[in-house]
Amino acid sequence: MKYKISGNVIRRLPRYLRHLDVLADAGIEKVSSGELGAQMGLTPSQIRQDLNCFGGFGQQGYGYNVLQLREGIQDALGVPERVGAILIGAGNLGNALLTNFRFSQCGVRLMAAFDTDPAKIGRKVNGTYIFSVDAVEEFAEDNNVDIAILTLPQAAADETARRVVAAGIRGIWNFTGKDLCLDENEAVVENVHLSDSLLALRYYLRSEERDL
Amino acid sequence: MKYKISGNVIRRLPRYLRHLDVLADAGIEKVSSGELGAQMGLTPSQIRQDLNCFGGFGQQGYGYNVLQLREGIQDALGVPERVGAILIGAGNLGNALLTNFRFSQCGVRLMAAFDTDPAKIGRKVNGTYIFSVDAVEEFAEDNNVDIAILTLPQAAADETARRVVAAGIRGIWNFTGKDLCLDENEAVVENVHLSDSLLALRYYLRSEERDL
Repeated sequence: MKYKISGNVIRRLPRYLRHLDVLADAGIEKVSSGELGAQMGLTPSQIRQDLNCFGGFGQQGYGYNVLQLREGIQDALGVPERVGAILIGAGNLGNALLTNFRFSQCGVRLMAAFDTDPAKIGRKVNGTYIFSVDAVEEFAEDNNVDIAILTLPQAAADETARRVVAAGIRGIWNFTGKDLCLDENEAVVENVHLSDSLLALRYYLRSEERDL
Repeated sequence: MKYKISGNVIRRLPRYLRHLDVLADAGIEKVSSGELGAQMGLTPSQIRQDLNCFGGFGQQGYGYNVLQLREGIQDALGVPERVGAILIGAGNLGNALLTNFRFSQCGVRLMAAFDTDPAKIGRKVNGTYIFSVDAVEEFAEDNNVDIAILTLPQAAADETARRVVAAGIRGIWNFTGKDLCLDENEAVVENVHLSDSLLALRYYLRSEERDL
């Protein structure tokens, strides 16, 4: 793909993938833009517009072939091309990711975890070794690490982000809740701000009550 | 407020709050739409448009009073009005939230946690008691529970969501990664789909590499 896809479309593609997974698991072979739209709360024309960005997998009067569309979106997102990731901070949240998160479904290979706690270093969680944080630079030098997952306390967030970027890691998945002090061209940062999500839920809950 | 605020603005308000927290902590008393925009990657006119939804706290030539603006946004989001929440599923992710997440900053009071594991039931994590999942209905009957936080395995997601809704809980913060089978008018559901976030990071990382 040579052209840029808009941020909103990029954000919707993983949602399409999830719905297509459900359809594929149910053995459904084709789906119309109307059906997909109804499931996802989008208009059929929105669906067609989104998916036309990728050359359009749909056929007039037939709809989309579920497996082909899924593959096309996976390709567009780069899923088949595995990238390597390390996780820094093996506390509760880090352990939750190590134990339950399906990295491979996102085309990500979790290579190692790092922590400062001597009681954790040297242990293995769900097949992933925990090393000392001091070894991050060495590990990044010896291995192809694309993404650092920060699941450590806020106080250590900026310093660790700087170390990670200095070690040549270009992607940061940031769970610290702190906006990192990095220049835009130093790294690609994806923040998971759980409080934003909870505040939005609260707002919608209250505005719904007002409507009753 | 009598009017509806668009979804995009609602999603940005928590971000404004976070930036205003940083400014307030640094003792900064006023900020212009230009400064706020530069920090947040938004245009000044976008900022003014967003904040005018709330009657506008800005003064021409002065900018925004940081503390007043923060209070106005907190009010708009309903933060001062506490709501009650329960957490269902005290595994790694549930424990991470119980231990580290600052519910009170979102105006949420975490009342209790629930799990199926007898080894966890009766224990206390960071001040929150863990009860048997069998007691969810009784607890919801005796207490004012607005939000159920689902941090349990996907396999139990739909059944638990139905129980929670039947018990009169109207808000669901869904970490299961599964889109719940609920009607729109049964509950307000906020999904935390971590894989969507990781896939977006991957995409942006790759598209940046192509640009180099």
